[in-house]
Amino acid sequence: MTDALVVGAGFSGLAAALSLVRAGRRVRVLEARDRVGGRALTRWLDDGTQLDLGAQWIGPGQDRVNALVRRYALGTFPSPAYGGSTVIWDGARRDAAPEPTARVVELLDGYAARLDPAAPWTAPEAVRWDRITLGGWLAATAPDPVTARYLGRLLAGGLLATSADEVSVLQMAFYLRSGGGSGALLRMAGGAQQDRIVGGPAALAEAMAAALGPDVVRLAAPVVAIEQDRAAVVVYTDAERFDAAAVVVAVPPTLAGRIRYAPALPALRDGLTQRMPMGSAFKVHAVYPEPFWRADGRSGVATCSDGPVVETVDNSTPTSSRGVLTAFSYGVEANALRAMTPPARRAALLDALTVIVGPAARHAEEVIEYDWSADPWTRGCFCGALTPGSWRQYGPWLRPAVGRIHWAGTETATRWTGYLDGAIEAGERAAAEVLGRLPTGAP
Amino acid sequence: MTDALVVGAGFSGLAAALSLVRAGRRVRVLEARDRVGGRALTRWLDDGTQLDLGAQWIGPGQDRVNALVRRYALGTFPSPAYGGSTVIWDGARRDAAPEPTARVVELLDGYAARLDPAAPWTAPEAVRWDRITLGGWLAATAPDPVTARYLGRLLAGGLLATSADEVSVLQMAFYLRSGGGSGALLRMAGGAQQDRIVGGPAALAEAMAAALGPDVVRLAAPVVAIEQDRAAVVVYTDAERFDAAAVVVAVPPTLAGRIRYAPALPALRDGLTQRMPMGSAFKVHAVYPEPFWRADGRSGVATCSDGPVVETVDNSTPTSSRGVLTAFSYGVEANALRAMTPPARRAALLDALTVIVGPAARHAEEVIEYDWSADPWTRGCFCGALTPGSWRQYGPWLRPAVGRIHWAGTETATRWTGYLDGAIEAGERAAAEVLGRLPTGAP
Repeated sequence: MTDALVVGAGFSGLAAALSLVRAGRRVRVLEARDRVGGRALTRWLDDGTQLDLGAQWIGPGQDRVNALVRRYALGTFPSPAYGGSTVIWDGARRDAAPEPTARVVELLDGYAARLDPAAPWTAPEAVRWDRITLGGWLAATAPDPVTARYLGRLLAGGLLATSADEVSVLQMAFYLRSGGGSGALLRMAGGAQQDRIVGGPAALAEAMAAALGPDVVRLAAPVVAIEQDRAAVVVYTDAERFDAAAVVVAVPPTLAGRIRYAPALPALRDGLTQRMPMGSAFKVHAVYPEPFWRADGRSGVATCSDGPVVETVDNSTPTSSRGVLTAFSYGVEANALRAMTPPARRAALLDALTVIVGPAARHAEEVIEYDWSADPWTRGCFCGALTPGSWRQYGPWLRPAVGRIHWAGTETATRWTGYLDGAIEAGERAAAEVLGRLPTGAP
Repeated sequence: MTDALVVGAGFSGLAAALSLVRAGRRVRVLEARDRVGGRALTRWLDDGTQLDLGAQWIGPGQDRVNALVRRYALGTFPSPAYGGSTVIWDGARRDAAPEPTARVVELLDGYAARLDPAAPWTAPEAVRWDRITLGGWLAATAPDPVTARYLGRLLAGGLLATSADEVSVLQMAFYLRSGGGSGALLRMAGGAQQDRIVGGPAALAEAMAAALGPDVVRLAAPVVAIEQDRAAVVVYTDAERFDAAAVVVAVPPTLAGRIRYAPALPALRDGLTQRMPMGSAFKVHAVYPEPFWRADGRSGVATCSDGPVVETVDNSTPTSSRGVLTAFSYGVEANALRAMTPPARRAALLDALTVIVGPAARHAEEVIEYDWSADPWTRGCFCGALTPGSWRQYGPWLRPAVGRIHWAGTETATRWTGYLDGAIEAGERAAAEVLGRLPTGAP
């Protein structure tokens, strides 16, 4: 019998396990996939160009993930910063969004400043903010429909990987607050997209798993059931059972809700996981012989009010001469791409990229995509978000343990929720809960 | 090997199985519970008073369920109709809601008339209606906050068992349309609450199961996994495997999403089940020596703009002298009751009933509740509803089969969705799909 079990070897589960192991506890991590790292996955082109197919960035203020990168002596490199950004505004190329967009975002940042990220439902305006979708609010608040569309895609899309009509103003404000405001969240240099990790976040996950020691992480072991009583918790995979004093469930809420629990979880905890769908993103890397857009003085960073692509970044690496332009679609646009055949999708994406960086975009050497919504062990990205009207009723059930079951995952973080850093915060918090319940004394 | 498997022995699964058996096919129904009937459950007091703890009513226009009641020669009895209705309006008792409430409901019925219940996302206004919550719309449309509150509780509560802030105007209009409009849905006599079944809907489910013949329904057999390939589908319970040419999954969408599928379901089908939470109702029967409210000329039928109880009905039966007053709470109010201790909840409910029918309400002989949200094989009631902003993206995945997997359940009905009748329509439609794919010829 181990002291504690952890379900999921993403960053949250690995961080929880590290905290427990460091406190001298016997731990086992059960992971459904044949790899660690959760929503992070890295692939390499033949010349060594690093493609991060899922999570990829870290930035200032993300103290926990930066500390781990230092601890495991992983290298980082900055996101490219050449030339000016591009805005596709109602079909036309511009250097920046019209000034009124900033004023609308300021309003949202103001809402964010007035709520407690640990309990957003306690804000005096919480009921009102949770009853209006971001899309509805933008339609009423933005000076024109293009601004509303642009900001819905930038904020609900770029931050939550969903459509503005699917999230409430409260959910959006909570997310902005958790990441320190729109400036910190949206900026490349100085913001959440500042740096990448050599080897990708996957390298960090592997270093964390290695630090746990041998035989701690069990791969290809999807958890199907969790039973608990006054004495212990029992976790079942298809083939095995594991006993412990406590378990940390560190998978997305919608997947946590699919495990069978005995006794059944309380109605409101189950109601929470029924109302926290994952975002829906399509992230595609278009690979070129060189980052040709730089010759035109363009950074490759673009945001678009229309079209299948919501935003792009230059994702080229310093050690390769190749150019990688990475395109993101979210929500309605991502789902439209998903419904296409692969050739039609490739054509639609490359068409959109020509609008952004010119006709050379059509001549990609490779177009590489990975669909996290189709992956049964993640079922979407970047993260889960509560549906409109749900925060007050179900939000209070996000973090509190249910008996011997403790909840982690980036969705349960109060700072940098949705990010690697939030995943680590959540794992460490859940581990502290578990340590608080374990008998003290020499392990 | 059977021809077809059915997951779930609620009304939809039983109707699917009946259609298949009647077509000469070999069928097996796998049910997680130790009983049939799904969201219907009947209990009797010692004097034989029938208490329907879940689904209970049938009405005119519900042709499928009425036909089955006749086929199995089950008796019915009308809902009591003595005296006048009560409205608790901003804390005060009235005989009817102020006239402007009807005008606001007419607007919604008008929206409902403009959509196709088989494809509500195709309505010209669908995007706009799905981006605004019913709560937000009522706040902007109703003449005053009491009217907004009252109608939110009456419509989102009384029809979808949720809060007005959790559902979009499109979802509400779809539901109104599916049931033939607010009049048919809300009326007792002449509407969806007109009649009850002797023995309850559970008696009908048992008759349907008996008509399937012996050994067709396997109880206490929760399905955990479904695999399919070009040749067959394999359905796994904890203990057994079953092979067939097709399977009908006839459980609520949120529970269908918890089964493990191989190959994994398409991203958008999984996205649908992430976004279709069950309603959250609290239905409580307060039992009295007699229906004392009738002496005051009151019907026991009440709707309330405030307080923990949203509505009440006289649920007394013709064969008993006892009075049964049944109280319903939904969404925020239901969840607040759920968070109380049982004695505190009983006190809060009886307090609310005294406001509606007078101080005698405090002296209940028994208070009997059943929480469908706590039941792991239903996880809420009356039914699932798509979250705001989801219809256009995920609605098209509600009914289409995924390979050999066909979807039933009242949520997939186009007429009387959420009702017994819709469950039967959905089961029969799924069975027809299965029959269409099975080889023809003598079975």
